[in-house]
Amino acid sequence: MQTIRIGLIGAGTVGSGVLKILSEESARFEKEYGISLNVHTICTRTPSKIAPISKLFSKVKITDDYKQVVGNPEIDTIIELVGGTTISEEIVLGALQSKQTVITANKALLSEKGEIIYRTAEENHTEIGFEASVGGSIPIIRAIRNCLAGDKILGLYGILNGTTNFILSKMETEGLDYKEALKLAQEKGFAEADPSFDVEGIDTAHKISILGSLAFGEKIPLQNIVVEGITKITRLDIAFASDLGYRIKLLGLVRKLDGKVEARVQPVMIPKHHAFASVMNETNAVYYKTAFAGPGLIVGKGAGALPTASAVVSDLIYYGSRRGKNLPMEKNRFPKASISEANQTEARYYLRFNTLDQPGVLAEIAKDLGTNGVSISSVRQNESEKEPAEVVVVTHPCVEASISASLGRIDTSEVVLEPSVAIRLEDKL
Amino acid sequence: MQTIRIGLIGAGTVGSGVLKILSEESARFEKEYGISLNVHTICTRTPSKIAPISKLFSKVKITDDYKQVVGNPEIDTIIELVGGTTISEEIVLGALQSKQTVITANKALLSEKGEIIYRTAEENHTEIGFEASVGGSIPIIRAIRNCLAGDKILGLYGILNGTTNFILSKMETEGLDYKEALKLAQEKGFAEADPSFDVEGIDTAHKISILGSLAFGEKIPLQNIVVEGITKITRLDIAFASDLGYRIKLLGLVRKLDGKVEARVQPVMIPKHHAFASVMNETNAVYYKTAFAGPGLIVGKGAGALPTASAVVSDLIYYGSRRGKNLPMEKNRFPKASISEANQTEARYYLRFNTLDQPGVLAEIAKDLGTNGVSISSVRQNESEKEPAEVVVVTHPCVEASISASLGRIDTSEVVLEPSVAIRLEDKL
Repeated sequence: MQTIRIGLIGAGTVGSGVLKILSEESARFEKEYGISLNVHTICTRTPSKIAPISKLFSKVKITDDYKQVVGNPEIDTIIELVGGTTISEEIVLGALQSKQTVITANKALLSEKGEIIYRTAEENHTEIGFEASVGGSIPIIRAIRNCLAGDKILGLYGILNGTTNFILSKMETEGLDYKEALKLAQEKGFAEADPSFDVEGIDTAHKISILGSLAFGEKIPLQNIVVEGITKITRLDIAFASDLGYRIKLLGLVRKLDGKVEARVQPVMIPKHHAFASVMNETNAVYYKTAFAGPGLIVGKGAGALPTASAVVSDLIYYGSRRGKNLPMEKNRFPKASISEANQTEARYYLRFNTLDQPGVLAEIAKDLGTNGVSISSVRQNESEKEPAEVVVVTHPCVEASISASLGRIDTSEVVLEPSVAIRLEDKL
Repeated sequence: MQTIRIGLIGAGTVGSGVLKILSEESARFEKEYGISLNVHTICTRTPSKIAPISKLFSKVKITDDYKQVVGNPEIDTIIELVGGTTISEEIVLGALQSKQTVITANKALLSEKGEIIYRTAEENHTEIGFEASVGGSIPIIRAIRNCLAGDKILGLYGILNGTTNFILSKMETEGLDYKEALKLAQEKGFAEADPSFDVEGIDTAHKISILGSLAFGEKIPLQNIVVEGITKITRLDIAFASDLGYRIKLLGLVRKLDGKVEARVQPVMIPKHHAFASVMNETNAVYYKTAFAGPGLIVGKGAGALPTASAVVSDLIYYGSRRGKNLPMEKNRFPKASISEANQTEARYYLRFNTLDQPGVLAEIAKDLGTNGVSISSVRQNESEKEPAEVVVVTHPCVEASISASLGRIDTSEVVLEPSVAIRLEDKL
């Protein structure tokens, strides 16, 4: 029987979830997987809080000093659930240098300090598992590493942030505006008091950077990802999208075309009939396209104590079983991807113009679009008694640069009252 | 570098797909996974057909005698793509007895002869990979084995047969009747000339038997699965389902309640708004409920040369990497599950009665249902100029035995013109 001696650092909600699962299921894991998962030490700033659950483990040590865990020769695997990128970096690097296996849920650390972490793991011939860092309980990292190993991934599309998906869902289903939906998300515990990390798309960018690098075997640095959040999405755009047969989602995407990688986090419109569009509220999902297997979709809970803990424990079993077995080490270090020029990739666009209701407005907009090579697929301007009028244009495929140039010009017009809105259509999923 | 010497037995569509992937991607697999996949021998009844692709492999041997592969000490891994349950059994058992790793897509063989196959693998300390046997490219077996290892599966629900899902989809979207949709499926190559294996639910039963056993660590024999096909589903029921907000799917399900396993393959009604219901045409999907991770859904191509081949190659890499590494062997042999009494499980039902349009009919039906303890949730009888009238009843939860008893009595009535229809509602997915 393979025995794994675990040091847990950080016993908050996810850490407590890990302890709960281990206390309830360890006997079954021994029977089913032939692996014994022993909790050796728990490191927490508030030992009193975990007293009840730690009692379920015999001989477990409790400490508030992570140095009792990192490098401790009696511990072969550490679980880092501290979060952030400062102490957690010390912990992870220290553990790897001591040849301890590391399991973490820390996407910020990996996407910001991945280079040194992965190199340290490689140099010390030890492994780092981070299934819980992306998509919570969705087994997307294992899917890329093992399940799709015999395939070639062409593109990954993720709804990877529960906060923003919840907000956009409620804006549509409850007719809320952005601020109301954000407030509701905060009340329900789906959004932080300062939600900017989520709503500005940064969290999704961290995740898509990790997934994209694994999928293509090429490093996709954060600064190469076009990132746009959902703060400018209005109830009006969501309603127009719905009328046109689309739903707005904050999508993280990486895809490869002609050897170059396109990496974006943006609100986009997805056809409503597509299974991907039915991923609502705080649920996460990843849609993938591959060379051989064809498209696939994985949907599940993207956050929460037990879903995330479940991914941590799966990693414990997986990496625990591999420990000391002289298997080829999983690769995490890759050469930098060649990134495509963001404003030169093609897409169809939804454009909305808030204009005075007077003759010639549509002609002016159409002319400016045409001048910049933007071809119109459809136009709608609803009859309205009162100004302003909303003109909605759906374009044929064109490069982003043409859209920017058109809008740059149109927005200087006296008949256009607000900055115009442009949202990409992802209609070829 | 781990080197795997492969014997491929059966070079039809999937086998050719495997050769195509290996010829194109082997160099990348070496780089990414540190494993060299060498095709040593190809066994096929028609060597001339594979001449073009076999040229892409240097020094490959071609034979029409599987005994050149099975037990050949120069070959450590065989891929069995012969199908059926006769020669394939000899091949698989012979290979395992020779301590060769076996990769197979043969669900019929595994669900009918699994016991002896898994025992032989165990006794010879070798492994058998069968990701390709269920759900084609959907990595559901790996998901159960690795991704959800740290969790506890409570239920698995699969749309696992492309033929039947295609037929049901076309009946809905094109308004075809069953025979027309079957004909279309046959024309498109999604159904066999004799489709009974698919449309009667047997293929789905094979797959759910394999998945269920892995999910619960308890053997679910084929004969313990309630199996009902789609041949009695009418366009009318599909339309009524749609009006009620449901979609009819052939669902294979296994779930555990109070220590007992319920195992069924049946056409059921799924709420249309559920992501599972948006799995259309030949696409497959598995929806799972777990103790910790919460529900999840995996969608993808369930069949086809390259999707299935992609799963075979993923298994080659996975089991190839594990070969000779003294890892805990994956378990496939389990104690027999305790199966719940089929007609005592509770569900809501959709019932349709084809009746004469005369006073008292509804009262008679309602009385018979009530007598058998079936409580009515809603009734609809559309106004109609011509007989027969269709009476549609949706019940509150009740056991199947009550439904059978009610229908047994109602169908003897003179006012009921055709055998009544009962379809379970799976509305708590």
